[in-house]
Amino acid sequence: MKKILIIGGVAGGASAAARARRLSETAEIIMFERGEYVSFANCGLPYHISGEIAQRSALVLQTPQSFKARFNVEVRVKHEVVAIDPAAKLVIVRCLSDGSEYRESYDALLLSPGAAPIVPPIPGVDNPLTHSLRNIPDMDRILQTIQMNNVEHATVVGGGFIGLEMMESLHHLGIKTTLLELADQVMTPVDREMAGFAHQAIRDQGVDLRLGTALSEVSYQVQTHVASDAAGEDTSHQHIKGHLSLTLSNGELLETDLLIMAIGVRPETQLARDAGLAIGELGGIKVNAMMQTSDPAIYAVGDAVEEQDFVTGQACLVPLAGPANRQGRMAADNMFGREEQYQGTQGTAICKVFDLAVGATGKNEKQLKQSGIAYEKVYVHTASHASYYPGAEVVSFKLLFDPVKGTILGAQAVGKDGIDKRIDVMAVAQRAGMTVEQLQHLELSYAPPYGSAKDVINQAAFVASNIIKGDATPIHFDQIDELGEDQLLLDVRNPGELKNGGLEGAVNIPVDELRDRMQELPKDKEIIIFCQVGLRGNVAYRQLVNNGYRARNLIGGYRTYKFASV
Amino acid sequence: MKKILIIGGVAGGASAAARARRLSETAEIIMFERGEYVSFANCGLPYHISGEIAQRSALVLQTPQSFKARFNVEVRVKHEVVAIDPAAKLVIVRCLSDGSEYRESYDALLLSPGAAPIVPPIPGVDNPLTHSLRNIPDMDRILQTIQMNNVEHATVVGGGFIGLEMMESLHHLGIKTTLLELADQVMTPVDREMAGFAHQAIRDQGVDLRLGTALSEVSYQVQTHVASDAAGEDTSHQHIKGHLSLTLSNGELLETDLLIMAIGVRPETQLARDAGLAIGELGGIKVNAMMQTSDPAIYAVGDAVEEQDFVTGQACLVPLAGPANRQGRMAADNMFGREEQYQGTQGTAICKVFDLAVGATGKNEKQLKQSGIAYEKVYVHTASHASYYPGAEVVSFKLLFDPVKGTILGAQAVGKDGIDKRIDVMAVAQRAGMTVEQLQHLELSYAPPYGSAKDVINQAAFVASNIIKGDATPIHFDQIDELGEDQLLLDVRNPGELKNGGLEGAVNIPVDELRDRMQELPKDKEIIIFCQVGLRGNVAYRQLVNNGYRARNLIGGYRTYKFASV
Repeated sequence: MKKILIIGGVAGGASAAARARRLSETAEIIMFERGEYVSFANCGLPYHISGEIAQRSALVLQTPQSFKARFNVEVRVKHEVVAIDPAAKLVIVRCLSDGSEYRESYDALLLSPGAAPIVPPIPGVDNPLTHSLRNIPDMDRILQTIQMNNVEHATVVGGGFIGLEMMESLHHLGIKTTLLELADQVMTPVDREMAGFAHQAIRDQGVDLRLGTALSEVSYQVQTHVASDAAGEDTSHQHIKGHLSLTLSNGELLETDLLIMAIGVRPETQLARDAGLAIGELGGIKVNAMMQTSDPAIYAVGDAVEEQDFVTGQACLVPLAGPANRQGRMAADNMFGREEQYQGTQGTAICKVFDLAVGATGKNEKQLKQSGIAYEKVYVHTASHASYYPGAEVVSFKLLFDPVKGTILGAQAVGKDGIDKRIDVMAVAQRAGMTVEQLQHLELSYAPPYGSAKDVINQAAFVASNIIKGDATPIHFDQIDELGEDQLLLDVRNPGELKNGGLEGAVNIPVDELRDRMQELPKDKEIIIFCQVGLRGNVAYRQLVNNGYRARNLIGGYRTYKFASV
Repeated sequence: MKKILIIGGVAGGASAAARARRLSETAEIIMFERGEYVSFANCGLPYHISGEIAQRSALVLQTPQSFKARFNVEVRVKHEVVAIDPAAKLVIVRCLSDGSEYRESYDALLLSPGAAPIVPPIPGVDNPLTHSLRNIPDMDRILQTIQMNNVEHATVVGGGFIGLEMMESLHHLGIKTTLLELADQVMTPVDREMAGFAHQAIRDQGVDLRLGTALSEVSYQVQTHVASDAAGEDTSHQHIKGHLSLTLSNGELLETDLLIMAIGVRPETQLARDAGLAIGELGGIKVNAMMQTSDPAIYAVGDAVEEQDFVTGQACLVPLAGPANRQGRMAADNMFGREEQYQGTQGTAICKVFDLAVGATGKNEKQLKQSGIAYEKVYVHTASHASYYPGAEVVSFKLLFDPVKGTILGAQAVGKDGIDKRIDVMAVAQRAGMTVEQLQHLELSYAPPYGSAKDVINQAAFVASNIIKGDATPIHFDQIDELGEDQLLLDVRNPGELKNGGLEGAVNIPVDELRDRMQELPKDKEIIIFCQVGLRGNVAYRQLVNNGYRARNLIGGYRTYKFASV
């Protein structure tokens, strides 16, 4: 009879426990969770704070009782594993209710401890109005602060998934919100110019977004003021817990009632380190493709481990739920002698930012540059479904690919409709090893309410293939401000479109007049063509090149250029 | 200087013309269109009839003038090519305005004539109240009939894309609608049991859906009654054009004010036949992968051609916009000496049926049976995104795969949210040659508003892989009514769920009580387990099998069984 111990009862741990039981009725399976809850919906926490998920109970997917009934898994909540003895194959467990300790032996051990929010040692940050959000008790504390303190202004530090979701949730509650982000963009899985769309959406909602701004110091002002009925006060402005004065990296001061720290997470590796398990360079637990640590009887999954990047083959830390769940299932398989291999992580990610979705898969341009991987890129902005059918929204799409072979390196998309679909299509295509040549042939579902006969993806593939074949010579938004004397900017939009902005010094000849007015253009200069999104620019480019001009087309058009600086 | 003639100015023809110009400024390009409009949105026609697309002009994507200005393509509308002389490389064109004829020579010719609605020779079908819908004049005639005749009841014959869209459009206008379909299901790209969800949705809206019912005879009753102001009448019930009495195949009579024939389309091949071009067995123009007909100077694309089926490699007729557009682009490439190969058609399709989407890609079960291709199948019914986040809807998903290699043969999905996404994911995975084993590893975008950590597709892949590996023994909905004496039905749902229906003769032991009550089950019978969607059934199956029972799990659960007969 096999005995399996699982440390951590969320995502990876829960998946492993359920799978292990399906594989064996006789195995003894014990799960340790130092918190009070197992298998809760951690991704849903911000949405209960906002009230969008009304029932707190909706977040608790399983209980110790339901795990026992369905899977005969013994769940010990408030029990913390404090040490592992790999040689003796046993763990030391502390019961957090009474402080007692005991040993539990194992044949196979799974570490699924997750990752903890990083809270940097900023002076004053340890105070009752500053919170991180990792679990249900954290959520409860934030909700309590909001209610008791009648928060009128909140500050979120960090523009990643949790920071963005908390920003939106607080705003949703009618709380004035400031979002501080040290980098020059939110949502780092996408590149700076794609994040511009999110910045616009955030500012359009009235959120005070401050990029390139860090939090330097926190000063906690105790200011208990309980509303007094007798004095004719109501509770809407009472401050039971006081407020905070924040000092920012630019020297500015900011008064706030609630501070959410969401700058990122760090793998929980103390237990693994203490047990002598190998730790990777990025600080996560090292595992092989079978999810085994350096001790073959000990498996590790989820946010705590370093996994292999699908594109680069290098180690990476990707604290996301999808990989964690699949890794947990796989680890259980392998405990029973199967040989399931984890196939690498693309880092497919998506985040709701008000009515926008911002998504990505594979590597972004920043990462490709850093890794020294050659790439080319295209941008398209086209309708999420047939533009003549109601409800179509612009999908802004970026595709990164190998400039010679056309292999897909990564994709990013932003918009109000159909973003998850395009990212998923790209995630599959990339995983399958497809090239942009093959993407052209994708036969995606089309009816006016759902897509277009030539989908966003087909269109991006056409542009990318044109570049590879030499049918198009691209220029990118980040090269526009560096044009030389021997280059001429040509705006082929209609005069009516120019009022929405344009590039300084451009000559305007609408694409439909270009054939007749071509002689106005000099043959000794390179013509830098642009339109709104790049499509008419390509038509103009082909005309000019086929007439003996040297030309380049601004890929993604003025729209890409414009949002890059938002 | 190359001279290119294009016959047909929609989808394939329009794509080819634009692409040809981008490849060459010097080519002479002439497009002939016997109708009045080129490049119109034929897929949008039903939605202008319903009023959802308010502006008729939104359907006209290009005009002869805009084609000329942008692409220097000469568009001759109301000019019909009446003959091709392949030996002399010329066509004979009739100007429909004055009946005059002239010749036009070509270096390359493209046939993009499309497909015409099939109107069978039903007695009486030729009358002023019976319409098909192919183009803008058809749409105008239908709208005119609705307005002039004050249609109160309409009948649509045929439950394909156009039939379903017209049914919905007429219903949307407040017109009582009957839908007649000769087959036992609508939307033939999906299998009968998946169509059941659509049947339910159609009936829930109050549409009179009659399956297995044909139209036998039409009797046109002239009944002009123009409302008279003087007599105090209003126009809401006037009948200027009369009404129709329909005789159905079951002998029933049906009175209706408008009849839409939408039983299918037939490739327009007369011109190709007369020119001696090869016609395939299915009645479409025969082309090679370069979209060349049997005459290498003549290309053909779109609804008129037979293309290669991606799965079977056999010829197929797939009258859809996506392939037509991509084929047109490719044909233009090949006219200029490129060697673009069409990669086969999966038949990816989707249709809106009220608030449902019904989609499919690859082969369905009917086709696989017919082609003698071995297959296995799974069904899952799971939430379109995290079920705890508002707006999640059930995705009902069917996956067909090779029972040994696990290659994807086809997929179908029905539901209110996220259907196009799942079909697109499957279309890409199939085209890439992925197996169900690989589908397990797909890393799809997840945040609560968009997906799940284990997406529908991952879940279906888990079930399929379980079957291939022998971890699950399936039984399907269509085998349930044929159980023998040596089989016992076990319902593992909770007692509270039984009121919504179940399988006769089933023993009920909720899955969470099964471990304690297992001894109630006989070991000499095969236990046929079912739950609502198949997930708990699998948990129960694993328990029983690991305890030495023989068992099978109803894949897709009671939900699949139930809707199969709707």
